This record gives sequence, C-alpha cells and structure tokens, in this order.
Amino acid sequence: MSRRRLLALTEGLSDPHRGKVARNLLKYKPEEVVAVFDRENAGKRASELFGFGEDVPVVGSLDDAAEANAVVVGVAVPGGVMPESYVEIMREAILRGMDAISGLHDFLSGYPRLVDAAEQSGVRLIDLRKTATKRVVSREGIDESCYRVLTVGNDCSVGKMVVSLEATRELIRRGYDAKFAPTGQTGMLIEGEGEPIDAIPGDFIAGAVEGLVARNQSHEVLMVEGQASLVHPRYSGVTLGLLHGATPDALVMCYELGRERIHGVESMKIPPLADVIELHERLGNVMRPTETVALAINGRKAAPEEIDAERERARREHGMPAADVMRHGVGEIVDAIIERGVRIGKLSPR
Amino acid sequence: MSRRRLLALTEGLSDPHRGKVARNLLKYKPEEVVAVFDRENAGKRASELFGFGEDVPVVGSLDDAAEANAVVVGVAVPGGVMPESYVEIMREAILRGMDAISGLHDFLSGYPRLVDAAEQSGVRLIDLRKTATKRVVSREGIDESCYRVLTVGNDCSVGKMVVSLEATRELIRRGYDAKFAPTGQTGMLIEGEGEPIDAIPGDFIAGAVEGLVARNQSHEVLMVEGQASLVHPRYSGVTLGLLHGATPDALVMCYELGRERIHGVESMKIPPLADVIELHERLGNVMRPTETVALAINGRKAAPEEIDAERERARREHGMPAADVMRHGVGEIVDAIIERGVRIGKLSPR
Repeated sequence: MSRRRLLALTEGLSDPHRGKVARNLLKYKPEEVVAVFDRENAGKRASELFGFGEDVPVVGSLDDAAEANAVVVGVAVPGGVMPESYVEIMREAILRGMDAISGLHDFLSGYPRLVDAAEQSGVRLIDLRKTATKRVVSREGIDESCYRVLTVGNDCSVGKMVVSLEATRELIRRGYDAKFAPTGQTGMLIEGEGEPIDAIPGDFIAGAVEGLVARNQSHEVLMVEGQASLVHPRYSGVTLGLLHGATPDALVMCYELGRERIHGVESMKIPPLADVIELHERLGNVMRPTETVALAINGRKAAPEEIDAERERARREHGMPAADVMRHGVGEIVDAIIERGVRIGKLSPR
Repeated sequence: MSRRRLLALTEGLSDPHRGKVARNLLKYKPEEVVAVFDRENAGKRASELFGFGEDVPVVGSLDDAAEANAVVVGVAVPGGVMPESYVEIMREAILRGMDAISGLHDFLSGYPRLVDAAEQSGVRLIDLRKTATKRVVSREGIDESCYRVLTVGNDCSVGKMVVSLEATRELIRRGYDAKFAPTGQTGMLIEGEGEPIDAIPGDFIAGAVEGLVARNQSHEVLMVEGQASLVHPRYSGVTLGLLHGATPDALVMCYELGRERIHGVESMKIPPLADVIELHERLGNVMRPTETVALAINGRKAAPEEIDAERERARREHGMPAADVMRHGVGEIVDAIIERGVRIGKLSPR
C-alpha cells in the first residue's frame, strides 16, 4: 500500500485509555497520523488529549483532513460494538475516498452501509481482527536459534504492547536484529502485520502464533506481544494459546501498580504476583524451558516516588530487575533479556 | 424441529475412530439414525463398522435412505476439510429435501453449490461450529447451588464426552437431576444444544461456556464436556477457557492407557499424569475451589487384564477411584462425583 496518511477517529472517547489505539499510533507511528477526529475537541492538538502527537491537529470536519487516505477507528470500544455516530463518520470518510481500518470485533464489513459506500468509492474495508487463519501447531520448522521473548501480565491492559515495542527499539539501538511480533489490533496497525489472536477460533490460536513466529524467525530476537493473563477469567485461554504457540525462551511480567482487581471482572481479586509468575512459567515449561527475566511496572496512576518505591520493593521481593519503562526507561529490562539470551546461547554480547 | 431421522455420511472413513460422530450418534441416539452412507460397505449393518447401531443399515445409494430427513457428516476429517466426494453426496441429499448438518470447521455454508441446492430445496444447512457467540465472562448470575463437574484429560480424544454422557445417565438413574452440557459438535448433535467452543474466537470461549452453564443451571448437576488438555500445544487455550468459563466444583481426569505422545503432535511426550492433574487443579483453583475426584481410563487398545491392572495401579498411585467406563461401568466414578457434591453441600445423598 502507498504510505498511510491516517485519520484517527476517537469522537467522544478522546482520552489516553479509551483512545489507546490512537494514542499508540501517535506515539509509535507519528509520521503516519495526519489528524484526529473528535468534534468536541476540534481545534486542540492531539498531544493535549493523548500525551503524544505534538503537531497533529484534532479536527471536527472531514474537510479539515483532506490529505488523509485512510480513516481508522482509534478507540477500544466498551463491548466492542461501534457507536452509531462512528458508523456515519466512517461512511462519509469512505465516500470521500478513504480506506477504512478497524480493529474491533464488530466488523466494518458487517455494515451494509459501509460495504456499499466502499464499493461505490473503490476503497478497502480493512478489519484487522478478521482472519481466516486455520493453522494448527505442528512444532515443526521452528528455528531454535531465534530468541523468543514474550510479555505476560497479571491482568489485561497493563502495558505488554508498550513494553514489547520499547524493548524492540532498545534491542535494535544496541545492535541486535530485533523484531516486534504483534498479536493485537493496535500492534498490527503499528507494525503492519501480525495475528489478531483474540479473534481466532480456539483451535487455531496457538497455531496462528506459531506461524507468526515461524515467518519472522530469521530475526535474532522476536519480541512477541502478550495478551491478557492466565488469571483473567475472560481471556486466559487466549493467553495460554499464545504462550504455547510462541514457546518463549524468556518472559517479561507486566503489572500495573495499585491494580487489585481483574479488569472488567472487578468481583475478582488479582492473585499475588509471585503466584502469577510461577503459573506462567509452569505452563510455559510444559512446552519448553522458559523463565521470567524482568518485571515491567506500569505506574500510570502512581506518583513518581511511589513508582520508585515499588521498583525497589519488586526487585527485592522477586529477585529480578524491575522498571517502569515510561519513568525509568527500558534499559534494565533489556539488560535482563540479553543476559538470558546469552546464557542460553541464543545471543552474543554486543 | 420435527423428529430427526438422520443419514450419517461416513463414506470411506467407516471405522470407530474416524467415524466417531456416527459411532456416538449410533450409541447415544440410536433411535434417530436411519442409515449410514458408505458405498464400499453398502449392505452391511452399522454395528459391523462402528460397534453400535445393531439394526441400522449401511447404504450405498440415497434411494435406500428415503425416510431420512437430514444428512449429517459422520466423520472427523483430518485437517477439517470435507472431501470432494462428501460435498457431492451432501448436495444430492439436499436436493432430495434433506437438511444438512456438519460439525466441521469447513462450513457447509462456504460451498456455493450447497447453498444453492439448499435454497432450491428449501432445507437448512446447519453448521454446528458456526457461532456468533460474543459473550464474555461476567461471573455474575451464576447459581452456586448447581453442582458443576468437568471432564478433563491429558490429551485430546481420550473419552471425555463418553465419560460425561455415561456419568449423566448414571446420575439420572440414581435419581439426580443431571444434565449433559456439550462443548463439541458430536455432543451437540446428541444433546441438541451446546457450544462449539473450539470454533469460538479466543475472547469469547470462557464466556460461551459460562453462558452454557448459566442457561442450564436449574439442573442439580451439570456434566460439562471437556476438550483437549492444558498440556496439548494446539488446544490448551480452549481447555483453559473451558475450565475458567465452567468453574467446575469437581474434575474427572480422563486418559488413554498406553498413550505416550500428544495426539497430532507426536514429537511431544505427554507429561506424567500426576503433573497433569495438579496443573488442571491449580489453574481451576485460580477461579474457584475444585478437585479431581476420579480417573477415567480409556482402555480401547488394551487387553482386559491390562485395564484391570492399570485400574489398581492408578488407584494406588493417585489415591482416588479409577475405572474404564466401558469395562467397569461408570458407577465408581459417579460415587466419587456424588461424594464431593455432598461434601461441599451441593448434593444430598439419595
């Protein structure tokens, strides 16, 4: 495809949490986002709403985003169903000749209005979660010289994608041939490929991930994006399929400081982190030896001194490196990733 | 639907293993199967091929199954894709006015020839694995007075469905209001409802099972059909989603005597049974207290004395009841199920 010039639609949901697709595009692909669409916030800059996207304007009319060649749903919608207003805005954008991209379970191609408009305009509807993958795990053809690292967590939405992206960047900066392997729609939007594993039928989850790994295993290091948690009652199956499909050599455990209850199922307490670590290692080890090498703290709701204190506490309690990549950088986590890679003979020191 | 009069299509794959859908229909719904279709074996009785279905004829022409009102794919096809000959036979059956039923991932509705034929005949194409379920786990509205039992295993194809069905029958015989809750296509064909969980997108696996439990929880005991294993690299995600969606009070661990390697991934050894038991309990206990109450031995390839010896060995090693339901009956397993139900206050002794 020719270079993407994206209009990120976040109408009415323009905050860093709900607008996380837009926020991460603004952060990791700033050169591709030409505008954010939100009538309420028109005239502002994206950085005021999302913390990233310095010079990107927020517009309230498609006329003000004429250079965009694709409109992307920039929010994670509660329940996964597109609000009616979004459908209308997408339709108008399509009729103006923009491709339409969505990572929702609620497919664009399920709206006859959008299908008709796309046919009329000759543009594409791209549903990132729509997949025909029917690959099952074979455990064959895996190049064991490729070092596979998976981010895991004690809950969903704790920063696995960000840690994976930051670690990939830092590994590359240090001279390693590292690649980010996305398993969710936002990561796929950023990287341009991946597997939308939460949308894949159960039988094919691990196989899809094995395929993702296999087609990228010419790289020295694969940073595989984790999803959810083995202790999340909704999505634990996705997490286990991912763990068994990726057969990682190393795990980075992510958690949010202060989070006590399962995201979306608040009646459930999150188990102690040591248990969650042990559980992921235990299940990973069913397939191949793996080990948790570092902790990634998400301190988005905490004060700086709280984050620093947690870092010290976590290092002591769990006996491994810990850092909030936003506050402390990803260096110490990457040190630990490299150290294990060297120890198991998959990386050389640089 | 009016009473089903099924023609089971097993052409070229008429043995108990590959024809397991037909075999189980013949065993558990003999009154609904009017004929088996296999040209090579026309003239035989179903029982000669499958071990069940005493009086059911094997036919080689649709003319000989005129009373059938539905044709069902009776095999588990390797790779899940329907052989070309099956498509043609299905089409002819449809044109004669039969509904068509399939549990394959390869949907009937994906064949324009079949869709056209069904429209022409005014019959239905029923793809058991086609599902629009988008339910996520809420952990709300669960009636904790309903006693939930899940069959689990150290591999796939070890007899979970059969153990669930046999235990349900025996519980009913003893005066309990028990219900079989199917999670696979064969179970669904037998029971007339269920959730095809291996075809459900990852995010919705546990939610679908929670829904299945919720809509059947007026029963005293639910025997939930297990799938695969936490140690199966292909399907472990399905198993964990099922475990966390069903939140069972009790587990029955199924395994095949003599099986040493993972079904379909023979490069992998099956871990020791004690580890598999501990892993399922550990992961189940993340949500709610659960416990393995009995072992179900599948001795289909073993001699009677080997099965008896394994039973003694298993009882000693694991300290719990063990039985091959085909050889020893399901009584001892059901005793153990009831014992735990009484112990946790969900059942009364009868």
